[in-house]
Amino acid sequence: MAHSALKELCDLSRSAATLGSIGSLLSWDQETYMPPAAAAHRAEQQAMMAALVHERRTSPRIGDLIASCESDRSLTGDPASPTAAMVREFRREYDLATKLPGDLVAELARTGSQAQEVWKEARQKSDFAMFAPWLEKMMALARRKADCYGIPKGPDAKPGERYDALLNEYEPGMTARELDSIFTPLRQRLSAFIAQVAASTNKPSTAPLSVRIDASRQHVFGQFVIDAMGFDLKAGRLDVTTHPFCSGMAPGDTRLTTRYRDEKFTDALYGTMHEAGHGLYEQGLPKQGTLGTNGSAIPLFGTPLSESISLGIHESQSRMWENLVGRSRAFWEWALPHARRIMGDALAAFTAEDLFRAVNTAQPSFIRVEADEATYNMHVMVRFEIERALLSGDLQPRDVPAVWNRKYKDYLGVDVPDDRRGCLQDVHWSFGLIGYFPTYTLGNLYASQFWQTIQGQIGDIDRQIARGEFKDLKAWLNRNIHAHGRRYRAADLCKMVTGSPLSAEPFIAYLEGKVGSVYGIK
Amino acid sequence: MAHSALKELCDLSRSAATLGSIGSLLSWDQETYMPPAAAAHRAEQQAMMAALVHERRTSPRIGDLIASCESDRSLTGDPASPTAAMVREFRREYDLATKLPGDLVAELARTGSQAQEVWKEARQKSDFAMFAPWLEKMMALARRKADCYGIPKGPDAKPGERYDALLNEYEPGMTARELDSIFTPLRQRLSAFIAQVAASTNKPSTAPLSVRIDASRQHVFGQFVIDAMGFDLKAGRLDVTTHPFCSGMAPGDTRLTTRYRDEKFTDALYGTMHEAGHGLYEQGLPKQGTLGTNGSAIPLFGTPLSESISLGIHESQSRMWENLVGRSRAFWEWALPHARRIMGDALAAFTAEDLFRAVNTAQPSFIRVEADEATYNMHVMVRFEIERALLSGDLQPRDVPAVWNRKYKDYLGVDVPDDRRGCLQDVHWSFGLIGYFPTYTLGNLYASQFWQTIQGQIGDIDRQIARGEFKDLKAWLNRNIHAHGRRYRAADLCKMVTGSPLSAEPFIAYLEGKVGSVYGIK
Repeated sequence: MAHSALKELCDLSRSAATLGSIGSLLSWDQETYMPPAAAAHRAEQQAMMAALVHERRTSPRIGDLIASCESDRSLTGDPASPTAAMVREFRREYDLATKLPGDLVAELARTGSQAQEVWKEARQKSDFAMFAPWLEKMMALARRKADCYGIPKGPDAKPGERYDALLNEYEPGMTARELDSIFTPLRQRLSAFIAQVAASTNKPSTAPLSVRIDASRQHVFGQFVIDAMGFDLKAGRLDVTTHPFCSGMAPGDTRLTTRYRDEKFTDALYGTMHEAGHGLYEQGLPKQGTLGTNGSAIPLFGTPLSESISLGIHESQSRMWENLVGRSRAFWEWALPHARRIMGDALAAFTAEDLFRAVNTAQPSFIRVEADEATYNMHVMVRFEIERALLSGDLQPRDVPAVWNRKYKDYLGVDVPDDRRGCLQDVHWSFGLIGYFPTYTLGNLYASQFWQTIQGQIGDIDRQIARGEFKDLKAWLNRNIHAHGRRYRAADLCKMVTGSPLSAEPFIAYLEGKVGSVYGIK
Repeated sequence: MAHSALKELCDLSRSAATLGSIGSLLSWDQETYMPPAAAAHRAEQQAMMAALVHERRTSPRIGDLIASCESDRSLTGDPASPTAAMVREFRREYDLATKLPGDLVAELARTGSQAQEVWKEARQKSDFAMFAPWLEKMMALARRKADCYGIPKGPDAKPGERYDALLNEYEPGMTARELDSIFTPLRQRLSAFIAQVAASTNKPSTAPLSVRIDASRQHVFGQFVIDAMGFDLKAGRLDVTTHPFCSGMAPGDTRLTTRYRDEKFTDALYGTMHEAGHGLYEQGLPKQGTLGTNGSAIPLFGTPLSESISLGIHESQSRMWENLVGRSRAFWEWALPHARRIMGDALAAFTAEDLFRAVNTAQPSFIRVEADEATYNMHVMVRFEIERALLSGDLQPRDVPAVWNRKYKDYLGVDVPDDRRGCLQDVHWSFGLIGYFPTYTLGNLYASQFWQTIQGQIGDIDRQIARGEFKDLKAWLNRNIHAHGRRYRAADLCKMVTGSPLSAEPFIAYLEGKVGSVYGIK
């Protein structure tokens, strides 16, 4: 009986997920190959699929089945069991899908869409005053949204804050207080390190980054690298779009995109490796597995157990391949000869050490998406602190530019020239993504902490990378991260895999070791 | 009230059509870019979309609304009105979708799928006996299907035959008796002409067809040609697949595919022009128009008025561009310099006249899909005669090879070497497509008859083509054929546009004129 409730729940969810996977193809096609004149009808198609998915995800029958599963101790009695995790996550998804009243959902969509248009113009004109009232509107809506969700208790059972309710959409179980406790020491250590880098007289040359290489050759090299990483091109693709992304759209179907600039091949290379890191996670999720092995086994696809844990964990996978692997000395020892073979003579004059140094240049800047590993997290922390204060009401929208600019001066030592290159640079707030930014830094921190464990467990990982052998690394990630799907919360997975709660220490040690060696620091 | 019934009917139909357009994208993606490992899940996605479309197309509400529209004389009182045509075609579609009982639909799908597998093996082994029992099964199912649809009355109100009920799926309003009356003189005239060609001593050289040209250059040339034809590449695409097709999948979205052989560039060129002919029809259909112009105007997309008339008319559009335009002397006068410019030196030694003669080589063969214009329709007539006799029971499946081979000898003068290259060559019968083949020949005949009218109305059409000007031709097709959607039956459109009922005469005159000139036959 109980098992039949779980089975029906999974069947309904799988049908919604199959419809969702069709929506993903519509989106992918829109970004890649759709003729421009098809845009209006594509919006109709997307709206229809979204409505069909929403109808299935929010049906009262789902709610009844979840309640029935929750009260069945054979499913949830052992909170560590896969069935208990599945029921827990079905509940979370159902609450996210149903707790917001229809008029709020509509207002979020409408106001977000208007605010985004205003943001575009304000950014172009570098006119924050124009955007401020819309930021206020979006914050008011975000507060209403958080109150509808309800503020979750922190892991220590202490009452949280509104921000946590929003964070829960992207990073389930994480709290603002917890972020604070991790970010504060990180910020202090980074400040000191950035100052040391600035003072160094042993700066790398960026010449290897400005050679000219045809996009078509870059494409062949990119495919060569992701194939070596273990990304299965029979179950995926690599195409070109304006904004790179990874869509793990369906079992056996994970599609990556990248973009090429003839005059800076590392942009596409690291973009591709980044998306392929996401892609390996998607390919490693148990989308073709089952719960149970007998005749009544339940396929996992369409259930939370075949989904990724959180944005932070997803980002840890992309950043690991992009940075910990791709910007390592060992990587270039392997990759440079292949890069020369595939992309021609432009790199003939450089050594692996030249490439390694060039791709680890650290330089404070105004723009988050162009930031290096040493400074990137500072950009994120500025945003986290500001959006948290905006949500709580401690900060008024009109005061954002002053606070933003002061923090950039404090944390990165730079003078923000204008709001276009300052607090108007990111699209996120304009459509109400509050609580999203911190997951970028969480990704970097998880990646380094996992890497420390990997170095312990795969003793010769650097020598393997220098030979282009990524098999053991991929297998480790498959086994320790990917195969679990969403069974564990990120914090629990981290403890289980690394033996410690998440901390900034491994990241700082990694950064000081690598970037420090480039700049001759200590 | 009546108007509100029609509006609701159109709304329901548009929602089914939007879902159908998503299914078309799934199919297109499957043939073009889908990673192989995604095939199993793609089948799930397709099944789900097909079920959603079927549910909407067969809902009893649709039946009620059609009945209500039919009895409303303000809609159907004038049978020549657009609303009457719309209601008539809604009725036809609803009957096609609902008259077959579920168990028959399932058995057709299941048996067709099995028969297709058997056919593949039988063809490979050239073993017709293996396939014969399955052909019998499919014919029995086709008879049941025809009886469920009911045998339509011919235009002369005489009772028709079962075959007509199946023909109605592909060529509404056409009957076997009508086909007979057109095909019989065609066959006789073609026989005589084919014999004259065989006896000619003035045979063209096929040397221009066997030059070697890179697929990538062929692709650029193909795009150049279809752009000149007026195919809108902002509302469409050209990609590569194993089997070329055209999918007019949505408003603003018509996608063509082709395939390239380095050693025979005309295969891709004519394949591309053929599909672009279909594509121009799809782009010319009134998918973005409305019925009425006031506030309550009904969008045509999703209604039969924005759909093509029949397979025969669709094929007339592809064959016109492929053959009447593309294999004309004037076409090569324009195209050859561009072909040389885009595809390099391989064609340097040939004149436009060389190309014109080479692409009009006529030579009896065994294989339909490789046949030239002079012999192609003979292949079709063999199939029509055999499938008609199979359906009526006048011919037993086991006797098909003997009859097939005798007809090939009679009509084309060739000895079929084995069943693989004989009666097992086509896939159609294995999944129950009975009544489909004649539409290929109808396409050729309609194309020629339209062309005769076009020559009368665009006096300098040949000179326009020789200058690469296709604007007037495209506008003529848009106005006279495409813009009507499915408002008229094919036979009525033909009479309306050309002033005469469909006849084989224009085709024969065209063939004798063109191919006759190549072979020096008066």
